[in-house]
Amino acid sequence: MFRFLSRRLHRRNLSSTPSHPPSLPLSHPIYLIWGSNTGVGKTLVSAGIAAATLLSSPSQFHYLKPLQTGFPADSDSRFVFNKLRQLSVLRSPRIPLSASHRVLNVSPAVTETKPFGGEEGVAPSELLCKTLYAWEEAVSPHLAAEREGLVVKDSVVLETLGECFEDVVERGAGKERSQVLCVVETAGGVASPGPSGSLQCDLYRPFRIPAVLVGDGRLGGISGTISAYESLTLRGYDVVAVVFEDHGLLNEGPLMSYMGNKVPVLVLPPIPKDPSNDLMDWFESSHCIFSNLKEIMLSAYFERIKKLHNMAREARDIIWWPFTQHKLVHDGGVTVIDSRCGGNFSIFKVQKTEVIAPQFDACASWWTQGPDAIMQTELAREMGYAAARFGHVMFPENVHEPALHCAELLLQGVGKGWASRTYFSDNGSTAIEIALKMAFRKFSVDHGLIMNCHEDITTERSTELMVLALQRSYHGDTLGAMEAQAPSSYTGFLQQPWYTGRGLFLDPPSVFMHNNTWNISIPEGYHQESLKSESITFVSCDEIFDKGRDKSELATVYSSYISKLLSGFRGSSRVGALIMEPVIQGAGGMHMVDPLFQRVLVNECRSRKIPVIFDEVFTGFWRLGVETAAELIHSEPDIACFSKLMTGGIIPLAATLATDAVFDSFIGDSKLKALLHGHSYSAHAMGCTAAVKSIQWFKDPCSNPNVTSEGRLLRKLWDDKMVRRIASHPAVQRVVALGTLCALELKAEGNSSGYGSLYARPLLEKLREDGVYMRPLGNVIYLLCGPCTSPEVCNQLLVKLHRRLEEFEGYKN
Amino acid sequence: MFRFLSRRLHRRNLSSTPSHPPSLPLSHPIYLIWGSNTGVGKTLVSAGIAAATLLSSPSQFHYLKPLQTGFPADSDSRFVFNKLRQLSVLRSPRIPLSASHRVLNVSPAVTETKPFGGEEGVAPSELLCKTLYAWEEAVSPHLAAEREGLVVKDSVVLETLGECFEDVVERGAGKERSQVLCVVETAGGVASPGPSGSLQCDLYRPFRIPAVLVGDGRLGGISGTISAYESLTLRGYDVVAVVFEDHGLLNEGPLMSYMGNKVPVLVLPPIPKDPSNDLMDWFESSHCIFSNLKEIMLSAYFERIKKLHNMAREARDIIWWPFTQHKLVHDGGVTVIDSRCGGNFSIFKVQKTEVIAPQFDACASWWTQGPDAIMQTELAREMGYAAARFGHVMFPENVHEPALHCAELLLQGVGKGWASRTYFSDNGSTAIEIALKMAFRKFSVDHGLIMNCHEDITTERSTELMVLALQRSYHGDTLGAMEAQAPSSYTGFLQQPWYTGRGLFLDPPSVFMHNNTWNISIPEGYHQESLKSESITFVSCDEIFDKGRDKSELATVYSSYISKLLSGFRGSSRVGALIMEPVIQGAGGMHMVDPLFQRVLVNECRSRKIPVIFDEVFTGFWRLGVETAAELIHSEPDIACFSKLMTGGIIPLAATLATDAVFDSFIGDSKLKALLHGHSYSAHAMGCTAAVKSIQWFKDPCSNPNVTSEGRLLRKLWDDKMVRRIASHPAVQRVVALGTLCALELKAEGNSSGYGSLYARPLLEKLREDGVYMRPLGNVIYLLCGPCTSPEVCNQLLVKLHRRLEEFEGYKN
Repeated sequence: MFRFLSRRLHRRNLSSTPSHPPSLPLSHPIYLIWGSNTGVGKTLVSAGIAAATLLSSPSQFHYLKPLQTGFPADSDSRFVFNKLRQLSVLRSPRIPLSASHRVLNVSPAVTETKPFGGEEGVAPSELLCKTLYAWEEAVSPHLAAEREGLVVKDSVVLETLGECFEDVVERGAGKERSQVLCVVETAGGVASPGPSGSLQCDLYRPFRIPAVLVGDGRLGGISGTISAYESLTLRGYDVVAVVFEDHGLLNEGPLMSYMGNKVPVLVLPPIPKDPSNDLMDWFESSHCIFSNLKEIMLSAYFERIKKLHNMAREARDIIWWPFTQHKLVHDGGVTVIDSRCGGNFSIFKVQKTEVIAPQFDACASWWTQGPDAIMQTELAREMGYAAARFGHVMFPENVHEPALHCAELLLQGVGKGWASRTYFSDNGSTAIEIALKMAFRKFSVDHGLIMNCHEDITTERSTELMVLALQRSYHGDTLGAMEAQAPSSYTGFLQQPWYTGRGLFLDPPSVFMHNNTWNISIPEGYHQESLKSESITFVSCDEIFDKGRDKSELATVYSSYISKLLSGFRGSSRVGALIMEPVIQGAGGMHMVDPLFQRVLVNECRSRKIPVIFDEVFTGFWRLGVETAAELIHSEPDIACFSKLMTGGIIPLAATLATDAVFDSFIGDSKLKALLHGHSYSAHAMGCTAAVKSIQWFKDPCSNPNVTSEGRLLRKLWDDKMVRRIASHPAVQRVVALGTLCALELKAEGNSSGYGSLYARPLLEKLREDGVYMRPLGNVIYLLCGPCTSPEVCNQLLVKLHRRLEEFEGYKN
Repeated sequence: MFRFLSRRLHRRNLSSTPSHPPSLPLSHPIYLIWGSNTGVGKTLVSAGIAAATLLSSPSQFHYLKPLQTGFPADSDSRFVFNKLRQLSVLRSPRIPLSASHRVLNVSPAVTETKPFGGEEGVAPSELLCKTLYAWEEAVSPHLAAEREGLVVKDSVVLETLGECFEDVVERGAGKERSQVLCVVETAGGVASPGPSGSLQCDLYRPFRIPAVLVGDGRLGGISGTISAYESLTLRGYDVVAVVFEDHGLLNEGPLMSYMGNKVPVLVLPPIPKDPSNDLMDWFESSHCIFSNLKEIMLSAYFERIKKLHNMAREARDIIWWPFTQHKLVHDGGVTVIDSRCGGNFSIFKVQKTEVIAPQFDACASWWTQGPDAIMQTELAREMGYAAARFGHVMFPENVHEPALHCAELLLQGVGKGWASRTYFSDNGSTAIEIALKMAFRKFSVDHGLIMNCHEDITTERSTELMVLALQRSYHGDTLGAMEAQAPSSYTGFLQQPWYTGRGLFLDPPSVFMHNNTWNISIPEGYHQESLKSESITFVSCDEIFDKGRDKSELATVYSSYISKLLSGFRGSSRVGALIMEPVIQGAGGMHMVDPLFQRVLVNECRSRKIPVIFDEVFTGFWRLGVETAAELIHSEPDIACFSKLMTGGIIPLAATLATDAVFDSFIGDSKLKALLHGHSYSAHAMGCTAAVKSIQWFKDPCSNPNVTSEGRLLRKLWDDKMVRRIASHPAVQRVVALGTLCALELKAEGNSSGYGSLYARPLLEKLREDGVYMRPLGNVIYLLCGPCTSPEVCNQLLVKLHRRLEEFEGYKN
């Protein structure tokens, strides 16, 4: 039996969407015409809109048919071309019309040799019909393509369509917005496959063109129309109107009821079934409906344009952005985001004309993002399902499938080998506060600080518990999380009057690439004079992670340094927990810490019964090329925090994982001994559902082509040569490239360095022109991709970054 | 022209779902058979499954056709009845079959008088076919019902269906699970209207019966099948198999590719088109496929049962619940939640047999819930759309439609008249921490604590800023939020070693109903001896909110008490913010504070330039019968926090609103002066989309029947008489009923009172048996409904509560 494209193949086709799909121009209205089924009259509707446009005032109409099968016997663009010429002659007062018809690509099976008909641009009204790809057999495009040989990738369809849109812009130049209209007629139903096998509603998604849905007036048509509408909205399309042929079944009633005030429903008169009928009378009698439809399309277009133009100003007026000095947000400095499709989001830009242009989200939207376009669509379906099935339901003492499944996957994945309990919360910061509460309780129990735990409200706080933490660490924005970080720009009286910094903060040895070698920089105070200097440079990053380094002299230096510090810490304060970000310190400036140091630190704490917390909010879920950064330092924590990428970047959720021993320190007869911390939406079903999907997706080689060696490692995403070139650039102080992260510190001095610096701004503005959206941490900048992003896309990013570095004047000042 | 059911009517039909729809028994497998279009062969599939069940081993098959139009000419249940009798004769080895066919309700237009055919239960295999409702005209049920007069509400269809399921349980008693199978065949497509106009996929949703989807093998059928599948999953249904008739178009390829490993796709041989064909050969040739399908249905059923039985134990093993002493979670104490439908969630229960039974979510899942069933469906669609359109995108310096729209609606609604900026975060606790940072900055600027704000990292903390707050307040679980609350069970060293309580905590006068009057209890220290005692009891709650009380003697008492306290507070500590929950203190024990006191407090703070924060996380969005509780105290804050109900209870999101003056205190030349607080998913598109929908939904009388007087007030939800009856009950200490809240404190002493008490537990266990899911705050219990819940449902809750109070032995101990 015929075997169809496998899931894997389907995935490749869709992900072959170029990293930068062409922009959608907004100079004039462009619409997609969808059918709720095949044979519901999409082409008649297209022709009707064309007639309402061209024959009532001088104007230009572009009709595009990307995919045509059954050609040349069937040709929708030829039909529109012919009908409009006929109608133009009949209609009075007559507006002279020139019409053309082109076929751009035909399959080898097609023998017709006339790719062009009609004339162009000689009359006040102008019709331009194009078929982009045509196949002979009257079957679905995916079958025709497979059988006839004109196989065409999704990305190529989009590019060709993008070129046609450019043509609309060029030919429409100088004309009023409402004088030019373009419709793109799809083939079959909304979810009918395109030539690669991708569903058309997925295929065209990167453009997110507004839609007109041709409904079904027949028996069963209410259901078909509603379901088709739902498939479109479930892919983020905006449907501006539903129009269908009347079959006398009053389908408009339930459809209007369903659509409410959101989408108008229009009813066309019955279409004569006699094939000899030239439909001229039908078009006449439908004229009013089509004029109405055209007006709806125009006004939705104008409304969209107006909104897009106003949004930036309105946002500046009423929104208070986090981490933003509003005085520095200049006119035009606000980015209006229309949508996201996988790794790119689409922004509104005004260039020669207005466009919706893709930008690669290289800041991963605060490090949350992971999905490619297919994963996003699947997540959207899952979100709809989870919302419909559960909404949100109460969690304590209850269980539902997504929470249980998510907890299982966490314990079998990032918690494997050590964790046995999952505690859910909302974000990294809350996960950290929970972790601290867990650690301190464990410490208090282990060290006899709590003898009788019952009814403890009034217990004297004779012991002050502190954390052991690292300089430049960052664990979140709520007070408890902030207390666990060293003083920084974020912690001053101005920001947080209650901050005191309840920690012993070590200055850790850091790792970076510079001048073609990997270096470990050891702060003063480590008695490093005893070390041979060659021991702290490495040729490759892999060597730094080598467990063999445990036997190195440096390990001894680290160990005695830490020992000494801990022994020196006495009095009423005690170190009750170690907390650190394994390997990479994110918000503190993308610093890589020597993994050997972190391993030694964990061992020293463990031997003193100090609970160990790993903050994997940034590093978890493949950020650094492995599922958990703990693997890189060959250590296990007692407690670990996860968030951000955990849900694939679609919805907030966090988890704090813990060992049984930690859990047991909360067991007792009284509720007051339980961990009394919980947010309203604890373990909400949508978040857990997204996490389940994402955890599975990232580690499955069938869905993530980057996964190698039995799902334990991502292949190298950043080209080593390019990374070294960038690391050797005179503007660059240091580089760290690991997993999905490539960070660099720009050489800068004085006010130009540090978190408050605007030094990198001009460089990033240039990169945004290249379609790369980055955000600075002062003079530190970084590229982040998703766990599924292809190395080719990463390389394009590096090339663009390098080119802009070459122009960057900052370092010469 | 024919006018269809208005949106309002449609809404009423659906919401007429009884508050307690019947349970779904799990003793034997029950399935819904859906069609991706009309005429795709649902009845043949039903008959095929019946044949595969009945004719291969002794068994029982229930075929239910809830809605039949075109009757008696068309009768799917008669068709199944006849076909199976024919097949039974032919099949060898023959298993003797008894078959019956019943029609329960027919429209007046139907003249056939034979509602029963066949015989029951005399042979080893047994077929029971039932049509529940039948109309004569061969049109959609909503039209037939309207024209013929057998109008039937959704709730009645569900009840009738529930009775049929009871019959399945009874007749199947003693039989193996796999020996009994029930299928319910829908009419038309998945979204075809039922008799009330509700779409069938919505109509049957409260049962959430697992589904088999009959796909479409024709041209365009790939699209129709996928869209129908998406409409089902978008309503939370689980589809276990897709089956369709082969039309030679290889539709199975793309369908299998789309379904991946989730759902098997089965292909049936072409159905003979000749109407004289008795299909016996076709059934024979399809036998293998149907057996396969039946096995899939059975194994999905067994898997579900197994999962449901194991979930409680698994959850106890690996989940760490918030606010839960795990030692007290006994065997069987874990509730397995299968799904939610509006105000009810469905739980797994083992009684005589296993059932999925509805429970009214009277704890509103930690006070988050608001949607009814229709709103939940709409929210689910919006969630799918927002996830598909945006996923999540970076927020600072950016804007997208949902965030902007949400900010606008907040400022025009809960922030109307005072707020001009919206700051987004994830939950109530983070919203509070942001509010505190805002307030302290404003205070510091106003009082000259910050002269030159630039680069302030090392500023000496010469002033300690404190909050002015109320005893029994609760503002969240993160440390910053906790510091703003008075010492309590939540703040001991055991729970939070870092808590110090940075506040001046006033003991506020509280309001409650007892013995048929509303009372104000004034704590000691207010010099109340000067007051006439009658001034502190009221006949109705409305009087307490009367602004005229400003002129009362009590106002003067309050004012001088507060003044004196504030003047007495000197030294290095200063009160830098007032924070309070307006009217009702939630987690602190559902205490109502005298609104006059809160108004006076705000005025006293304002006159001293102390910024005022309202914590409306619990009280906001109609919780107390008005959109914001600030309206009830006739006061405006400088800063207010919202969350919980803001998204309709579907997804976490929070907002901190502020005045321009507060915002301005963060403006400067340096980024370091900005508010440096932001969570990863700041202003995530799904959350903002849900909030937009919910804010609009709750205040629109077209969607919320409880809204009165121009959208400013909810009608009274709790029956005054019942409330007074409960308040007079000897077991009851005090009652507060306001908006969607009805709370009561049970009389208790010593260990029986307070947060750690288990005193209310037996009472609540009984109420869970009644289908009411409540949670205690120690000896305080409460009922919460949603802003759209009907007073009838509320009354049922009060009646059940009163009945169980009568039995409650606690107070007699």
